[in-house]
Amino acid sequence: MKLNIALLAGDGIGPEVINEAVKVSDAIAKKFNHEITWTPALTGACAIDAVGVPYPDETHEICMKADAVLFGAIGHPKYDNDPSAPVRPEQGLLLMRKKLGLFANVRPTFTFPSLIDNSPLKRERIEGTDLVFLRELTGGIYFGEKGRKDNGDTAFDNCVYTRAEVQRLAKKGFELAMSRNKKLCCVDKANVLETSRLWRETVQAMEKDYPEVTVSYEFVDAVAMRLVQWPNSYDVLITENLFGDILTDEASVISGSMGLMPSASVGEHTSLYEPIHGSYPQATGLNIANPLATILSAAMMFEDAFGLKAEADAIRAVVNKSLEEGVVTEDLAVKGSKAYKTSEVGDWLVANL
Amino acid sequence: MKLNIALLAGDGIGPEVINEAVKVSDAIAKKFNHEITWTPALTGACAIDAVGVPYPDETHEICMKADAVLFGAIGHPKYDNDPSAPVRPEQGLLLMRKKLGLFANVRPTFTFPSLIDNSPLKRERIEGTDLVFLRELTGGIYFGEKGRKDNGDTAFDNCVYTRAEVQRLAKKGFELAMSRNKKLCCVDKANVLETSRLWRETVQAMEKDYPEVTVSYEFVDAVAMRLVQWPNSYDVLITENLFGDILTDEASVISGSMGLMPSASVGEHTSLYEPIHGSYPQATGLNIANPLATILSAAMMFEDAFGLKAEADAIRAVVNKSLEEGVVTEDLAVKGSKAYKTSEVGDWLVANL
Ligand SMILES: CC(C)[C@H](C(=O)O)[C@@H](O)C(=O)O
Ligand SMILES: CC(C)[C@H](C(=O)O)[C@@H](O)C(=O)O
Repeated sequence: MKLNIALLAGDGIGPEVINEAVKVSDAIAKKFNHEITWTPALTGACAIDAVGVPYPDETHEICMKADAVLFGAIGHPKYDNDPSAPVRPEQGLLLMRKKLGLFANVRPTFTFPSLIDNSPLKRERIEGTDLVFLRELTGGIYFGEKGRKDNGDTAFDNCVYTRAEVQRLAKKGFELAMSRNKKLCCVDKANVLETSRLWRETVQAMEKDYPEVTVSYEFVDAVAMRLVQWPNSYDVLITENLFGDILTDEASVISGSMGLMPSASVGEHTSLYEPIHGSYPQATGLNIANPLATILSAAMMFEDAFGLKAEADAIRAVVNKSLEEGVVTEDLAVKGSKAYKTSEVGDWLVANL
Repeated sequence: MKLNIALLAGDGIGPEVINEAVKVSDAIAKKFNHEITWTPALTGACAIDAVGVPYPDETHEICMKADAVLFGAIGHPKYDNDPSAPVRPEQGLLLMRKKLGLFANVRPTFTFPSLIDNSPLKRERIEGTDLVFLRELTGGIYFGEKGRKDNGDTAFDNCVYTRAEVQRLAKKGFELAMSRNKKLCCVDKANVLETSRLWRETVQAMEKDYPEVTVSYEFVDAVAMRLVQWPNSYDVLITENLFGDILTDEASVISGSMGLMPSASVGEHTSLYEPIHGSYPQATGLNIANPLATILSAAMMFEDAFGLKAEADAIRAVVNKSLEEGVVTEDLAVKGSKAYKTSEVGDWLVANL
């Protein structure tokens, strides 16, 4: 199979972790007789530095032509202190999501037996956790009208959702639930927000099409609690953009394996795969960043974008092996034992595929 | 001193836990020579049943005339399944907050040494946690214009903040920080929302008036993570209404003492004190609900509304004693040892004051 992949390394440790994901993907492609064409493109702070905007048109063209996009991380400290600066890396992220129509952010949270003691939660709370959030990514208050009035003394942000947007996301949620444990939780604030009431009534109307799926409706504040108390009670959760931003990040730390969590943003035109961690500027260039989340994102890409499940499973198996054998970067290294470099972990994975 | 207190018991276990708080407050008043006048009033489902609305005008009059309001809990399962029903108990809550001008919700999260193992977090993560959220309570997306368009297929909720609203809340935040560990965290989403940028710039402009306070600015998604990872790194946090709803509930479960957490809603006209737990309908009438959160809310009332710190400390001391001696309701009872009834806990506290 010919795989045409856009490669957006981004800022900070982005290029380093992307490098290892490319190594591992190329090795898998060789083993399974695929041919990958990687097309690099600029995004984030490095794109601002080079051409003045965080998501250049040329990058967009490359993504539109690709079968999938593999993404590193963006963000640079020089843009951190002034969220109202006219050009910022994050704007590139939002523009990219909107222009590529990446409407569903898929964020799994699961545990690795060998890492379970890294969780801030007690073992009995976290054990068995295997949930997936589907976060709506191109609507809601992120993209509604916003601005100032009264000489700048009043600010507003409008949150808007259409029934079609909810249906599109919920359909993916029901389908995902059908392929897993058949439980779907719709997270909203329907006791206060009109958009949430639209979410709830839309999902309720779809229940009859998926009679096998058990659907629950929970308020966002209650979910924020239960994620800490009993995360293993969830299967698939669907929610709107802002709630998803907060809850997926909360969920990511409970596993104790945040540095390993992959994600996908599924769209109309293409899909994008990226680690959930950030650009970790302090570690840039030190060859110490953990590449596993990016490598597991590549595995998601093989399975979901190309339907290549055996290839994805092979990547996951070798990642598991590296964890069990302690071939890990310093963030995961047990005290007193050797910490591997970013590139050494990649090399080891390739050698052990 | 003459203390004129409105008593809003509400629904479910509300009347039972309020009863114990009244017992303890009366005993304290007697001991310290105060005279309390309690004026009961209806709110919540019981008000809907009696007069058709969840926050009757008569109740509002009583609250406006009182020096403080002690509140139980509201909500009844018969209103749970349809968040779009025209009359619901929660609407009473929102109306009450708005009409009483209760703009600042004060939500402490702290630990009790004897209960620390109830936390879902590991001991080393939660130990030493002592933080307070100040949640803005009468603005933002809760109270902005909301509705439908396109024959109901599009829903919107508008989030609005004025500089004056932010200043009022932030001022309380700075003052609270000055009386504690002098750390203030402003929680926003200034990389995406215009209202958040107004929050951030307003707080930044106030920093110079409180040179001793160390101020940090964190995105809401990052705080959702750090609350689970290192809750003991926080002191005072200020935030807008919806973020506060989600984060204060998340914070409440990390201590493992959710059933004990008090809160205050501070206003222009009066202040209201209430446990953070709900109306717990399954336990109604069983005399098993834990009254301590309501009793600790009464302690907050003595200290903050009336400036009676010795009285508040006396209540807290006897509550601590009851915990240490295991005089607790079934939610806290150690396996195999006796669980006390709601009223027995109140009686014991009064006897041991
Ligand atoms: C950087 C920011 C705009 C972004 C978001 O809020 O969506 C990030 O937090 C994320 O979740 O991908
Ligand atoms: C019941 C609901 C409207 C309310 C809120 O969201 O403010 C509750 O969750 C709270 O936090 O007091």
